[in-house]
Amino acid sequence: MDEFEVSPWNVSGKIDYDKLIERFGTQKLSNDLLSDLKNLSGELHLFFRRNVFFSHRDFDKIIEDIKNGKSFFIYTGRGPSGPMHIGHLLPFILAKWFQEKFNVNVYIEITDDEKYLHSDNLDLKDTKKYAIENTLDIISLGFNEDKTFVFFDTEYIKNMYKLALRIAKKINFSTVKAVFGFKESTNIGMIFYPTLQLVPTFFENNRCLIPEAIDQDPYWRIQRDIADSIGKYKASVIHSKFLPPLSGIEGKMSSSIPETAIYLNDSPEIVKKKIMKYAFSGGQPTIEEHRKYGGNPDIDVSFQWLYMMFEEDDEKIKEIEISYKKGDLLTGELKNILIEKINKFLIDFREKREKYKDRLEKYLYDGKLANKMWNTIYDNVK
Amino acid sequence: MDEFEVSPWNVSGKIDYDKLIERFGTQKLSNDLLSDLKNLSGELHLFFRRNVFFSHRDFDKIIEDIKNGKSFFIYTGRGPSGPMHIGHLLPFILAKWFQEKFNVNVYIEITDDEKYLHSDNLDLKDTKKYAIENTLDIISLGFNEDKTFVFFDTEYIKNMYKLALRIAKKINFSTVKAVFGFKESTNIGMIFYPTLQLVPTFFENNRCLIPEAIDQDPYWRIQRDIADSIGKYKASVIHSKFLPPLSGIEGKMSSSIPETAIYLNDSPEIVKKKIMKYAFSGGQPTIEEHRKYGGNPDIDVSFQWLYMMFEEDDEKIKEIEISYKKGDLLTGELKNILIEKINKFLIDFREKREKYKDRLEKYLYDGKLANKMWNTIYDNVK
Repeated sequence: MDEFEVSPWNVSGKIDYDKLIERFGTQKLSNDLLSDLKNLSGELHLFFRRNVFFSHRDFDKIIEDIKNGKSFFIYTGRGPSGPMHIGHLLPFILAKWFQEKFNVNVYIEITDDEKYLHSDNLDLKDTKKYAIENTLDIISLGFNEDKTFVFFDTEYIKNMYKLALRIAKKINFSTVKAVFGFKESTNIGMIFYPTLQLVPTFFENNRCLIPEAIDQDPYWRIQRDIADSIGKYKASVIHSKFLPPLSGIEGKMSSSIPETAIYLNDSPEIVKKKIMKYAFSGGQPTIEEHRKYGGNPDIDVSFQWLYMMFEEDDEKIKEIEISYKKGDLLTGELKNILIEKINKFLIDFREKREKYKDRLEKYLYDGKLANKMWNTIYDNVK
Repeated sequence: MDEFEVSPWNVSGKIDYDKLIERFGTQKLSNDLLSDLKNLSGELHLFFRRNVFFSHRDFDKIIEDIKNGKSFFIYTGRGPSGPMHIGHLLPFILAKWFQEKFNVNVYIEITDDEKYLHSDNLDLKDTKKYAIENTLDIISLGFNEDKTFVFFDTEYIKNMYKLALRIAKKINFSTVKAVFGFKESTNIGMIFYPTLQLVPTFFENNRCLIPEAIDQDPYWRIQRDIADSIGKYKASVIHSKFLPPLSGIEGKMSSSIPETAIYLNDSPEIVKKKIMKYAFSGGQPTIEEHRKYGGNPDIDVSFQWLYMMFEEDDEKIKEIEISYKKGDLLTGELKNILIEKINKFLIDFREKREKYKDRLEKYLYDGKLANKMWNTIYDNVK
């Protein structure tokens, strides 16, 4: 029996990512594929080198397209249900990397409708507020303002609705019940919503590449089922693992349990306090035992965060791992390395964020791509 | 066992309208209510005098509002699945009457989304074409261009979507399954659609009066269930019978069986041919028998059409009825009266329609009310 669950609305238990590949029927991101990508991009992003993005659907076709000089586009998104934490950044960091390497358009859907429909506690005013805040967080990663379009569903609906109808006509309740576990008690907004997550995969007449956490995969199964019938490409997807919550390597960081996550606006003091107090340690109970038996980096959240995101240097992370395993590096020292890295990242991030405040409108309305998108009514299927 | 069915997507059998009032739990339009209305409006429309509009929900509250000098507004709609026939005009004729008598705003929803989602044969291009043609038919009845707003769902969606989400959050699959008979095989567009038919009932902070054929009543049951919870008025509704199809007094005119209906663009020759050939007669098989036993106006479609719509004069219709019953008036003569009336109506209608072609934009975009509506995002609930 599987002891973990991964769905768009629930991630829990200790995730066995190999099992998940089997369960979802996706492909492992193979070394061959990654070396192909490296040849084309010049270098591999940390997330590829460290297996943070670990699974895919049809990513090989994107590689083929690049080899053949054919363009593609990036699509990902964010449900604006609260402030963003560090784990939320993963797909956007990779989206930005692809834009930089291959000069491609990036489309970012802010699903304010879905978050409102799904949550008992959120009003549309709240999701609007978070939509704006989250957008600012996202663009501050440095997206190209003329090749990036960020849109809120409740605003961009007019341009998407016709295509959403074409998609909706091909999906019945049985399907969303099977794929998402919807019930008779599910509200009819949630039942319709998947169409709007599918629409952007058809924004261009090129192949779409979706970097996203693996919990979103069910949407793309439906997309890939119907794409042919409307004369469009099946979406390519690369799936990330979850940056583990501070509390331990089960589940994912939860916005509703603040001590499990580091938020983008957490001050250096709060970061320090959270990591020191909550970051689950793979070290031994006493210094003596630690020196003797060494720590276990596989279950140590601080090490995992360094490995998955914050220690870029492949040599250094190897040293840290060995030293921790041997017991030379203590838990407190390991935590301090992480605290320093995170705070450096966040201070730099927030500085950029201040600068991007004035450019928000570019990504939403005025940039070259945004402007083109507001003048396009999507109805372009066979 | 009931031998008739009335739902938004199927009307069949010989409808017992008294039974329908019981089945749907609506109220009979009483003489008291109608006499109240007459006192306020100065006269009663033919549709009220002849019991064509026969049932209601909370129409007494509209009467109260009028008595108290409080405004109300009219909302009705059209599914643009094909050219309009004469039966389709009933709710619009009455909507126009209310506008004339009480100087109220009229909102007309063209449900191009629903018709596309529901029909295997219609593309969005078709529903768009019919949306425009049908709108021209409707406004040609003489609506006030500054107090009437006609909108296509696929265009006005942006202004309605937020309110639709608020409504959708309160309705689950069980409800639409029970109310509309939706199944697991129903597409998720159809499942969401009812929210968009409900939105316009909340356009103003006044009570909404909906003149519509009784098959649309299920929508208003849901509206009335949730109105309180979003701090809005329950919709008032007046229900019409169906103008019977030429083929006989069962069911309703069907756009897919052209010989059952007279279309607004049927030429005088076609009208004559259709009535002569198809209009079900309550007369006797031979002239001799007819003279002897007389005709039965209750099942005679030509008489019913004259009674329900085309013979305004209460004296004259009485004379026709008596004379037909006695056998003095022959079926052919009765049909000729109807043919003349219809052709006069249609020629006049099409003349007006030509004139209204230039004014289409007023009702859709530029008129005083339309302009205000395009500048309003509906999100005004508690």
